[in-house]
Amino acid sequence: MLERIKSPSDIKGLSYNKLKTLAGEIRSTILGTVSQNGGHLSSNLGDVELTIAIHRVFDVPRDKLIFDVGHQAYAHKLLTGRYGTFSTLRRFGGISGFTNRFESGYDAVTAGHSGAALSAAVGFAEANRLSNSDDYVIAVIGDGSFTNGMTFEALNNCSSDDLRLIIVLNDNEMSISRNVGGLSRHFARMRTSRSYYHFKHGAEDFLTHIPLVGKSLAAAAKKTKDFLKRVLIKNTLFDNLGVVYLGSVDGNDIVKVETVLREAKRTKKCCLINLNTVKGKGCDFAEKSPDKYHSIGKFDIRTGESSHSHSFSDEFGNIMCEKAENNDKLIAVTASMCDGTGLTDFAKEYPDRFFDVGIAEEHAAAFCGAMSLAGFLPVFAVYSTFVQRIYDQLWHDVAVQGAHIVLAIDRAGLVAGDGITHQGIFDIPLLTAIPGATVYSPDTYAELLQCFDRAASDNGVAAVRYPKGPQNRYSARMFDGDMIKYTTDETTDLTVITYGRITDAVLRAAGVVACRISCKVVKAVKIFPIDIREYERLAAGSRYVCIIEESYVEGSIGQKIVSECDFGSAEAYIKAIDKFIPHGEFDAISDYAGTAPEKIVRDLFDFVESADEREQSGHTV
Amino acid sequence: MLERIKSPSDIKGLSYNKLKTLAGEIRSTILGTVSQNGGHLSSNLGDVELTIAIHRVFDVPRDKLIFDVGHQAYAHKLLTGRYGTFSTLRRFGGISGFTNRFESGYDAVTAGHSGAALSAAVGFAEANRLSNSDDYVIAVIGDGSFTNGMTFEALNNCSSDDLRLIIVLNDNEMSISRNVGGLSRHFARMRTSRSYYHFKHGAEDFLTHIPLVGKSLAAAAKKTKDFLKRVLIKNTLFDNLGVVYLGSVDGNDIVKVETVLREAKRTKKCCLINLNTVKGKGCDFAEKSPDKYHSIGKFDIRTGESSHSHSFSDEFGNIMCEKAENNDKLIAVTASMCDGTGLTDFAKEYPDRFFDVGIAEEHAAAFCGAMSLAGFLPVFAVYSTFVQRIYDQLWHDVAVQGAHIVLAIDRAGLVAGDGITHQGIFDIPLLTAIPGATVYSPDTYAELLQCFDRAASDNGVAAVRYPKGPQNRYSARMFDGDMIKYTTDETTDLTVITYGRITDAVLRAAGVVACRISCKVVKAVKIFPIDIREYERLAAGSRYVCIIEESYVEGSIGQKIVSECDFGSAEAYIKAIDKFIPHGEFDAISDYAGTAPEKIVRDLFDFVESADEREQSGHTV
Repeated sequence: MLERIKSPSDIKGLSYNKLKTLAGEIRSTILGTVSQNGGHLSSNLGDVELTIAIHRVFDVPRDKLIFDVGHQAYAHKLLTGRYGTFSTLRRFGGISGFTNRFESGYDAVTAGHSGAALSAAVGFAEANRLSNSDDYVIAVIGDGSFTNGMTFEALNNCSSDDLRLIIVLNDNEMSISRNVGGLSRHFARMRTSRSYYHFKHGAEDFLTHIPLVGKSLAAAAKKTKDFLKRVLIKNTLFDNLGVVYLGSVDGNDIVKVETVLREAKRTKKCCLINLNTVKGKGCDFAEKSPDKYHSIGKFDIRTGESSHSHSFSDEFGNIMCEKAENNDKLIAVTASMCDGTGLTDFAKEYPDRFFDVGIAEEHAAAFCGAMSLAGFLPVFAVYSTFVQRIYDQLWHDVAVQGAHIVLAIDRAGLVAGDGITHQGIFDIPLLTAIPGATVYSPDTYAELLQCFDRAASDNGVAAVRYPKGPQNRYSARMFDGDMIKYTTDETTDLTVITYGRITDAVLRAAGVVACRISCKVVKAVKIFPIDIREYERLAAGSRYVCIIEESYVEGSIGQKIVSECDFGSAEAYIKAIDKFIPHGEFDAISDYAGTAPEKIVRDLFDFVESADEREQSGHTV
Repeated sequence: MLERIKSPSDIKGLSYNKLKTLAGEIRSTILGTVSQNGGHLSSNLGDVELTIAIHRVFDVPRDKLIFDVGHQAYAHKLLTGRYGTFSTLRRFGGISGFTNRFESGYDAVTAGHSGAALSAAVGFAEANRLSNSDDYVIAVIGDGSFTNGMTFEALNNCSSDDLRLIIVLNDNEMSISRNVGGLSRHFARMRTSRSYYHFKHGAEDFLTHIPLVGKSLAAAAKKTKDFLKRVLIKNTLFDNLGVVYLGSVDGNDIVKVETVLREAKRTKKCCLINLNTVKGKGCDFAEKSPDKYHSIGKFDIRTGESSHSHSFSDEFGNIMCEKAENNDKLIAVTASMCDGTGLTDFAKEYPDRFFDVGIAEEHAAAFCGAMSLAGFLPVFAVYSTFVQRIYDQLWHDVAVQGAHIVLAIDRAGLVAGDGITHQGIFDIPLLTAIPGATVYSPDTYAELLQCFDRAASDNGVAAVRYPKGPQNRYSARMFDGDMIKYTTDETTDLTVITYGRITDAVLRAAGVVACRISCKVVKAVKIFPIDIREYERLAAGSRYVCIIEESYVEGSIGQKIVSECDFGSAEAYIKAIDKFIPHGEFDAISDYAGTAPEKIVRDLFDFVESADEREQSGHTV
């Protein structure tokens, strides 16, 4: 049946029995594709019914539908004309694992970072209000994203009386890993307390048993304020913020979800609907371990088994456990990425010194700053792309204080699969713009340990950034040295300076280039502050100096090296990434980004040639 | 009496009558000093009693006292050994207008940005817990800061059972300008509803009339859960988050504040105390216009009158009003800085298109992104130092979406008075690291208009940054040209490239340098992306190229120009700011930062001389 759904209008006339079948087909498709391509499983299996219901009750894309984070939109994609291409999920040129407004008009925004949906939704809703439009905006937000401050800031801005904004709180009792904090306990109370809705046999039953038929729940609640609001609908968090609260409702029951959505639509006010869904719904192993199947690589569709290969995250986790044994001041902090950053064992072994603060990166960084002032050594493990959220905290709450924290930055550099919002190529411009910061970029496990030790004894913001996946193979063998390594101390025509995971590609490229021009590769492990004299020494006598990075060009290490080092008459060239990078397999996106070995070879030859040409034609000075 | 208070222990034994006198003296001292030096008036007059009470009930600095933003700590400073130096408030080398941990051991943190206090407080409190310390942490947070997401993230992390953390919500019914959003209405309800505390004749009365003497309120509340919590203490926002709620209490009554603080202390749990204070308390004109006297320059102590000189903010406000008349898609957004950014008239004339979102910069930026996708032209007016909080939103919610917003960045460059956390010298590294961003830096009013028009028709993030205060005088007369201006097209030995407010100082310095070496000044108005060819053309034939900036050096325009332009054999030098800059008069901090004309002259001569020396000794290549 799913293959015949070309747009949401195709499901509006279907019977509930057929919708049940459709939901099953959607689940099988998701399972099949994710088991092959990897992706987000648990959340996408959980929100099938609510997605179907939204598309039946609302008129997307005229009504704007926004998924927070956007990784739970597989059902939405399958219902909006992307069934035929769904098998290309997360592949280069294929369907994105997140909503993407350039992929489909049904995706109101491109997403990836948590907590942003409601701000966008308020924006669209206010635009509708200014344009006198009757269209609705629906934001689907997981309970985890409610621990993010941005969601709260937006919530505080969506209580104007005529905002046609419907916030769907998709409460599946967890954020990316487990949910934390007071809000999570508040949600738990809402789940267990008696619900206002006594759905028993579907919508008809609902309509006859509740004495408010046809009226707006909100209007009714207003009349009987104290009784209804406090006891039945409850005086909830959201109610306090001036948003009409409806719930809680079984989010895996299409009929119930539709009913409450229609009720919300009828209020013509900003409503928050509380749906309870089951993460991993319909798939045994995913229901049992929703955490494990939140984001997963290829797996066996029958057993759920997947292979795990040792990675930097594992190494980091081991280092933390080892160090904690001899240093009782060491604490670990994560913003809902306990598993992803490799801290699972640490959390078990040192629960007192492990802090999962929710999807609250800003709080995490500022919290670390104070812990440092109090004499602890806080290590905040965070993905590179989320470092983008904490510049001000690293600056105001760490650097300005003279505090010292270690950032363990995972997923630095290109990240396969997830795409544009998850590439770790923007942390360097930010970190280096924090006075007193130090940045390390190990590409082997031995270096990771070494960098961690140094970062622990540095001052200020000390960041150790490393890629997703395993250590570099060539790099581990080819170098000698400490914080700056190099293939030869002899003078060569070309000096290539690089760091981090791309080093292996550079070494391979240098092997090719060496056929035509003598060439050395210099690898920095401590990449900032830059060691000006050492680079000048190593490049002395070279005619060409090239800095190659798997990082964004503006604010890059290359810009710093070229602007600060005196390379004499040598021509200098920075090869870095100058654009957003989409999703895809690693090789494909490396090629797109220009960081693949073949692209490096080509660019090095081009650079040397054009430098020679410029030399021959004389400078324009 | 105040002059004899050397530390908080000196006020612990005073009678309430004497404390009343003391409060009066504190107010006179604050009024006198602020009328002379400028500073934050209203909030500092409002929290005198609560500060006295905190210092009597707690043992600071053993107990950590943290003021959010930190601009309301004048009374705290006067009570902690800084009465004698208070007349140097906001002056270079003098007392900071904010808390500063390097100024006094009584200041737990250096502050300046809103929403950070509670995260730091949770950090200190968790550190105490891990260290088995009985010390308390007290965070004083204005109601405005509760609109900031970071406060909420921290609030969600402070409900563990044994955290000795006391949150003082200082509710003075406004943030920096007026308060906005659902939370503000929630606070209003709390203010008007019947209080749990019936203070009538001070503490003794309180203790005999309430039947919970000696018991922890929280423990009592637990027993009688539904009744007490829901009806008396109310099921409030904070209660939902698992924090013990106490209040509301008249925050200008020392006895009442002390009583509730002691009660909170006794619970040994995380408590939120709701105090209502009067902003501007004790000063007629400040009570009447707390907004105007939030942050003010020198004024007449009797009348409150101060002179206003025309500034970039005023010009920006006028431009917005003019443009709005012919463009009904133009909207203005501010994060509680309506007056400061010059939007007061716009807010009055176009209330529908004016959005004050609270101290919620992140939401503001993401909201603008969506408004743009919906066809509007959002202009977000924000101080340079707060741009530090929205890198990820400009990136994720604007640039990635292909949206277009205009940032009107006020207070760019050095800012006199406020100090380390308010210098506008870090926006450029951040803005330029956003793919597709454009940055303008006008230093005259005519250019501001011109830049605004261009920014309005650009794509992506288009930022127009301008300093606090009036336009440049020399710059307005000396240049000809459009987005890059220059004093002469002739070849000179030295080419100085600059932009923004520092241009006047550079022109003056160039006048001196010109006695010894021929010199031209190139001023960029559109500073990013850089016009490589034009800079190369203008510097052609020069032996020295110098880029001078009133901006942080890492990620600076200078690094981009030097690393991207081919200046042939000319030596290049970047003169930018490489450290945090403290508070002080403009001339003093310019001197400290090295951006004063004399320092520029000295550095230019040094650069030319050392370049010559290097030339004579030969390059080390």
